[in-house]
Amino acid sequence: MPDKNQPKLSHYDDAGQASMVDVSAKLPTRRTATASAFVELSAAVLAVLPQNPKGDPLEVARFAGIQAAKRTSELIPMCHPLPLTHVDVQAQIEGEGVRITATAATVSPTGVEMEALTAASIAALTIYDMTKALDKGIVIRHIQLEAKTGGKSGDFAREGARA
Amino acid sequence: MPDKNQPKLSHYDDAGQASMVDVSAKLPTRRTATASAFVELSAAVLAVLPQNPKGDPLEVARFAGIQAAKRTSELIPMCHPLPLTHVDVQAQIEGEGVRITATAATVSPTGVEMEALTAASIAALTIYDMTKALDKGIVIRHIQLEAKTGGKSGDFAREGARA
Amino acid sequence: MPDKNQPKLSHYDDAGQASMVDVSAKLPTRRTATASAFVELSAAVLAVLPQNPKGDPLEVARFAGIQAAKRTSELIPMCHPLPLTHVDVQAQIEGEGVRITATAATVSPTGVEMEALTAASIAALTIYDMTKALDKGIVIRHIQLEAKTGGKSGDFAREGARA
Amino acid sequence: MPDKNQPKLSHYDDAGQASMVDVSAKLPTRRTATASAFVELSAAVLAVLPQNPKGDPLEVARFAGIQAAKRTSELIPMCHPLPLTHVDVQAQIEGEGVRITATAATVSPTGVEMEALTAASIAALTIYDMTKALDKGIVIRHIQLEAKTGGKSGDFAREGARA
Amino acid sequence: MPDKNQPKLSHYDDAGQASMVDVSAKLPTRRTATASAFVELSAAVLAVLPQNPKGDPLEVARFAGIQAAKRTSELIPMCHPLPLTHVDVQAQIEGEGVRITATAATVSPTGVEMEALTAASIAALTIYDMTKALDKGIVIRHIQLEAKTGGKSGDFAREGARA
Amino acid sequence: MPDKNQPKLSHYDDAGQASMVDVSAKLPTRRTATASAFVELSAAVLAVLPQNPKGDPLEVARFAGIQAAKRTSELIPMCHPLPLTHVDVQAQIEGEGVRITATAATVSPTGVEMEALTAASIAALTIYDMTKALDKGIVIRHIQLEAKTGGKSGDFAREGARA
Repeated sequence: MPDKNQPKLSHYDDAGQASMVDVSAKLPTRRTATASAFVELSAAVLAVLPQNPKGDPLEVARFAGIQAAKRTSELIPMCHPLPLTHVDVQAQIEGEGVRITATAATVSPTGVEMEALTAASIAALTIYDMTKALDKGIVIRHIQLEAKTGGKSGDFAREGARA
Repeated sequence: MPDKNQPKLSHYDDAGQASMVDVSAKLPTRRTATASAFVELSAAVLAVLPQNPKGDPLEVARFAGIQAAKRTSELIPMCHPLPLTHVDVQAQIEGEGVRITATAATVSPTGVEMEALTAASIAALTIYDMTKALDKGIVIRHIQLEAKTGGKSGDFAREGARA
Repeated sequence: MPDKNQPKLSHYDDAGQASMVDVSAKLPTRRTATASAFVELSAAVLAVLPQNPKGDPLEVARFAGIQAAKRTSELIPMCHPLPLTHVDVQAQIEGEGVRITATAATVSPTGVEMEALTAASIAALTIYDMTKALDKGIVIRHIQLEAKTGGKSGDFAREGARA
Repeated sequence: MPDKNQPKLSHYDDAGQASMVDVSAKLPTRRTATASAFVELSAAVLAVLPQNPKGDPLEVARFAGIQAAKRTSELIPMCHPLPLTHVDVQAQIEGEGVRITATAATVSPTGVEMEALTAASIAALTIYDMTKALDKGIVIRHIQLEAKTGGKSGDFAREGARA
Repeated sequence: MPDKNQPKLSHYDDAGQASMVDVSAKLPTRRTATASAFVELSAAVLAVLPQNPKGDPLEVARFAGIQAAKRTSELIPMCHPLPLTHVDVQAQIEGEGVRITATAATVSPTGVEMEALTAASIAALTIYDMTKALDKGIVIRHIQLEAKTGGKSGDFAREGARA
Repeated sequence: MPDKNQPKLSHYDDAGQASMVDVSAKLPTRRTATASAFVELSAAVLAVLPQNPKGDPLEVARFAGIQAAKRTSELIPMCHPLPLTHVDVQAQIEGEGVRITATAATVSPTGVEMEALTAASIAALTIYDMTKALDKGIVIRHIQLEAKTGGKSGDFAREGARA
């Protein structure tokens, strides 16, 4: 039995049981979230990446991320289905890999962190899928929340240098 | 126009255009893949994690990962739909976080790397979702292929220390 | 041609044709529904059920039910897609089987009976799936609405003993 | 820790942990399963049911059941995705309600009991959805496997009177 | 780089990059759209079509269209997920084929043209699927928007004779 | 009751009832299908279409079509779920619009006409979605099968000029 004075996990009730939190009584407000991912690639892959002008892999990744954001509540068990009002995913070569930045917005009683993180993750996996023939050692180096606005817990912006 | 002597990205034809590779002529053979992810958590979260015996968040993550593996071809644009013959996801506390290990298998003309990686990613995102109320700075520290067997490109095992 | 003075089925227009009812003019209000299911199991299965502490089948059933509630409008042809604000599923051994109780809530122009019933049904089927190796004669003994609140047709609570 | 001499639940390994069973080494063979459900309706509903010739609710239920069979592995966590070779759902008025009979077939290493049961359940819920305006007390009286053929565990046919 | 004075495609920003438009600041209002499709059939198919009283193919097409409308945002990359408040699909023999008319409505910050067009398209493809054994030359002769109401761009009604 | 000597619709049994045809006894063989669609656009839209180098709308349409092919059996009620071995979609400006050509292949007991037609339809609808702000009168001028190979009914190639 969890100690009620201790901080509690998200989605857990006082009996230590997971459920989808009841947000019926919360008013819908505007919320945004931005997440990032970084796909570390070898020099050989980085050289080939820009040479497909008619089917840019960074574009495929962007669309996969946008599509995935809409499926978040099907994938993450305790997520509420949300009317997303905006999704954008950027993917660009930066240093030794591809940086993904995904933004989601809604007007709803709950936040969109998981939507932004899911978009970034699936976009990163798509980059992986399209480059894996050239390098099996590719690593998705991090996936993290960069910022969020709106909601009871207030705004958040990751401090300092990126991971 | 890509140079035909250069190595090519996966899913790209000679005209530099992405499509789902034609595997009609390949015979189905057994293939497996194992992927891992690591969710870095603060000491405060690690202390609370085991205190929910009736709805263990590591179990929720395992099931979310198993379910996600089956949706891989819906999420990753160029992935073929595959008859998965096995999916397993393990999640355990290790050092300063939770290590996820996902395994997928099929008897099919193409591999299951993306299925294992998708399972690991969604399991990691589920851990994130259930702990985010306690720590907004959580980082999914890596997602990577650990091993694969079967297929024309042969077996693969990541060398050296884990990322 | 149906008699207009007779009571009409849900989702049917005056011409006797099924469609998704137009709720554009109805204001969103809070609605809840609770449904139950009972999975009758043999003594042999009931003895084995609690012996899987690391992957409690009742927990797997709970998560499957929560996930299924979100897919209700994909499964039931005339159901509207709804922004669910809460889903909870309980599963416990009771007498000669497992009792499932599923609750759903929304703030929307239509009710959530089907979401609660779908969650209870899929949770019950999941119990079935995990015990079927031990007993092929398992019966899901009933699926029924226990209570609903909100909406024009008013509150409802099933009377008398449970089925 | 479960006793290894005791019978084990489906989908559980020796450590008492649920996963999707590995069927990679099993050969695909033909398998069929038939499941039934019974939706108990009041006399008032039974009188109205046949009066919608242009959108027969029994037909809507049949199609919903056929569609749901194809989604079984998305709904039931440990089910393998299967290439279904046949699905049929029958729905007819019988005694004090509607009897649903669903049949599924595949050529695959695992059985289709859950596909038949899911088809029957969703068809029954669809009948419920289309009649609920007339009677909130409707009960889905049973959902059960009637017969299966193929696979290592052999054929099965439910004995005696139907539930 | 696109000329900013030129008209812009939907879903494109000033940098010529596609994303899901941000509608967070727009108020939800009632919007409707009606789309049509025409499936041209041979005389032989038209003769057989009405002879299936127990499973009218026009009814199967209607239900497929209604179900598809709810999946629009999964299929069309830049579409927002919308709480549909109404979907109706009509299918009737007219001249040398089957005319489909699909209507969708919502109370939301964006329109439902794509939902109506998707419903009409999938209903037409379903007619195709059920008649293709008799005639491989079937053509879906047009899919077009007939009318829309609500939203900033105002009402629209297609003029003149239907395509 | 249909006349048994008359030609029968696809998916219909002797009692005139629709179901998913039983293909359990048919051996898997290679099958391909090619479908086309034509989206008629105004001169104003055709002028703007090529001006988005970083997010080519023809590329978005191609990916949407490829993704949709994999969802065919979820959308078209009587379609079998198939292990697609290849999907490709081409989209190019031709005359007064955009011509879509979609190809699908499988090794399976049933054909892939519906997969090719669904891919072409959703790609065409995506072009519509991205250009609709400039012209509400856009018409998808035809959707049709161009060719198929494999299967009992033999090869097919549309004769004469394209529609």
